Amino acid sequence: MKKRKIAIMGFGTVGGGAYDILTKNREYIKATQGLDIEVKYILDRSDAPLKKHGVDPSLFCPSADALAADPEVELVIETMGGVEPARGFIVKMLEAGKSVVTANKELLAKSWAQLEPIAKAHDCGLFFEASCVGGVPVIRALGESFQGDKVQAVYGIINGTTNFILSKMSKEGLSYADALAEAQRLGFAEADPVSDVGGYDAAYKLSILASLAFHTCVPYADIFREGIESVTANDIKNAHELGYEIKLLAIGKRDGNDIEARVHPAFVPMDHPLASVSGAFNAVYLTGDHVGDLMFYGAGAGAHPTGSAIVSDVIKALGGSPKYCDFDNSGKLDKKLNFVGDFVSGYYICVTVDDKPGVLSRLATVLGDNSVSIKAAMQVPSAADTATVVFLTHRAHEKSVMKSLETIGRLAAVKSIDSMIRVL
Amino acid sequence: MKKRKIAIMGFGTVGGGAYDILTKNREYIKATQGLDIEVKYILDRSDAPLKKHGVDPSLFCPSADALAADPEVELVIETMGGVEPARGFIVKMLEAGKSVVTANKELLAKSWAQLEPIAKAHDCGLFFEASCVGGVPVIRALGESFQGDKVQAVYGIINGTTNFILSKMSKEGLSYADALAEAQRLGFAEADPVSDVGGYDAAYKLSILASLAFHTCVPYADIFREGIESVTANDIKNAHELGYEIKLLAIGKRDGNDIEARVHPAFVPMDHPLASVSGAFNAVYLTGDHVGDLMFYGAGAGAHPTGSAIVSDVIKALGGSPKYCDFDNSGKLDKKLNFVGDFVSGYYICVTVDDKPGVLSRLATVLGDNSVSIKAAMQVPSAADTATVVFLTHRAHEKSVMKSLETIGRLAAVKSIDSMIRVL
Repeated sequence: MKKRKIAIMGFGTVGGGAYDILTKNREYIKATQGLDIEVKYILDRSDAPLKKHGVDPSLFCPSADALAADPEVELVIETMGGVEPARGFIVKMLEAGKSVVTANKELLAKSWAQLEPIAKAHDCGLFFEASCVGGVPVIRALGESFQGDKVQAVYGIINGTTNFILSKMSKEGLSYADALAEAQRLGFAEADPVSDVGGYDAAYKLSILASLAFHTCVPYADIFREGIESVTANDIKNAHELGYEIKLLAIGKRDGNDIEARVHPAFVPMDHPLASVSGAFNAVYLTGDHVGDLMFYGAGAGAHPTGSAIVSDVIKALGGSPKYCDFDNSGKLDKKLNFVGDFVSGYYICVTVDDKPGVLSRLATVLGDNSVSIKAAMQVPSAADTATVVFLTHRAHEKSVMKSLETIGRLAAVKSIDSMIRVL
Repeated sequence: MKKRKIAIMGFGTVGGGAYDILTKNREYIKATQGLDIEVKYILDRSDAPLKKHGVDPSLFCPSADALAADPEVELVIETMGGVEPARGFIVKMLEAGKSVVTANKELLAKSWAQLEPIAKAHDCGLFFEASCVGGVPVIRALGESFQGDKVQAVYGIINGTTNFILSKMSKEGLSYADALAEAQRLGFAEADPVSDVGGYDAAYKLSILASLAFHTCVPYADIFREGIESVTANDIKNAHELGYEIKLLAIGKRDGNDIEARVHPAFVPMDHPLASVSGAFNAVYLTGDHVGDLMFYGAGAGAHPTGSAIVSDVIKALGGSPKYCDFDNSGKLDKKLNFVGDFVSGYYICVTVDDKPGVLSRLATVLGDNSVSIKAAMQVPSAADTATVVFLTHRAHEKSVMKSLETIGRLAAVKSIDSMIRVL
């Protein structure tokens, strides 16, 4: 069997995970896939990561140019992360006629529109199953399953860090700060956690998933994004009382020419399959016009789950012809489409007020005046002379709710608007 | 764009569903997949199903030979169900060089070994995403995702009828008989329900799923099978008290050369993702050696979900080259492999005994003598002078449990062994 030679650029957690699988299961892959895959080079800043991982340091390659120049290398795995130098290196590899398998969601969300035409021009593949939801084959599903269906909605819990933090808060009653500290201690959150907790990582992935689901470019820059930093232990307590869990959701919808794409914390009903996706697990829930509701669930990150997705792409790339995306991937939203900013959702609203009769009804009147109809309301005494009022609304327009909150914030009896969280 | 002509054999629920999608989304499929797919013929016993479905009766074709003889027809959908005449018709189509897309799990489980070589010999595709779990793309996932992983276990809730019945029993406290009658009334169960409630349908599907997952033929005839007919309302009550739901599970495991394949009711822990798969929904949960745990969830049956899987296969078949299974599909278990009959599992056991002191400990002694260790035990008075003893065991060998039950059944204080259900 002919040896198929590949290289890995960036030998951190995920690169190491892919290497482990390719090495440990090499005979199995030969037997079941008919491919004998050998890692010829590993590119990194030094050979230290190779030594740390117990890999023969002679595989070390210090230069992307040297790698690009070796005609034996058919395919390159990019697991460096970040935009540069990953982007430049990928371009180099594609221009040298090598297919690229990447786990880099940030790069894809920002530069897919430039990379895809280069891949196409050089008849190479650009594969990125590992960029979204670790080992869960959701990119493959969106490309090669239910292709006869119009996908109407995609709902994802697609960031492990925030799901770990919110699950900790939900199960142990921790504050956001304590849960974040615990996540950092256990290695589930970075020292600077903003990319995860701010919803940026989820927005990168949503840009990729929604583009594939709706067969049109859903630019990262157009995605509405709100992080989990202001979710409080009290919000979670209220959610539980009302029958919900709080999750960071990535939501994409398409209805004809209307497109919605947003990332924000959301109340998810306890009996919804997404509510029980907890800890570092991830899931993508989607609805097609004929297949109905589907959910794909699994580990959203980690060396081996993400490595598994990379190896899957390597096997796919070496086994067949490259596959390009089928839509205009110019990086801009198609002019025919409307990006819906004033979307419709349920809302959870939590307000601290003077503990006096009539305040709840005054707030309710403001909501009603703005066509926001109330599904449930609770009032509980909080500190001395103050009470907390909680509303759960029926589906209403975002702008109507914002306008209501503006008015409510100006009422004399209102001390503070504590929270506003959208409802799935 | 060139018209691609296909035919449908069998115009019942699923055939009609596939036709709906191909018709309604024809322009969408043209735009997104670059394929203009036209149904040229519909084969059935008469044109009555076409008329009933509002389809131009001129599409009616009464003869498989006529269909096979038309060189314009590239591909045929088989949605007749059952073994004959479906098998004979499929062979005719493959021999005429037409790819076949089928939803027929019974036929595949029984005749895949004969059909695949015919497809191969005539360079046609044999596609069957719709044969398992409706629109959930689990066949595609097993073939084209996590290919670098050794799949270690597959757990499926893959029969909608039994899941509907067990969910009804769980949520409403119904008896098996009442839940079955309700399922029949609503069209979720056939007048003769044995194929579903007896676990045959699930075993057909497990044969297909386990063969793909383990890259070896897992013959239908070797699968251990037990239906849900003896699950009682009392079992469900006990399960809830112990923290479980009861589900009909299809279980496949591979550990080196050891293979397990079995279909039976099982206690599933409440916090396991499979426990919340209820009603007519289905799910497949699987574990790979690197990707970890994955779950695929969705509607397991129905005209449009299953039709969606068929259309997906049609698009795949028309878009590319045929893909054959990569293992020896001789219809027999590979001689290298051991089929594990004496598998290991937890067990729930429910026994009616004389309501006298010392009986529970006598039963516990029998279990202990057979190396079956007890995880939990409960005793509740039932009718006059009798009590019900419930055991939940740690993982034990099937044969040890069977031997214990034999001995327990002979004890004077034992009125009846009411239930034995395995635990996931």
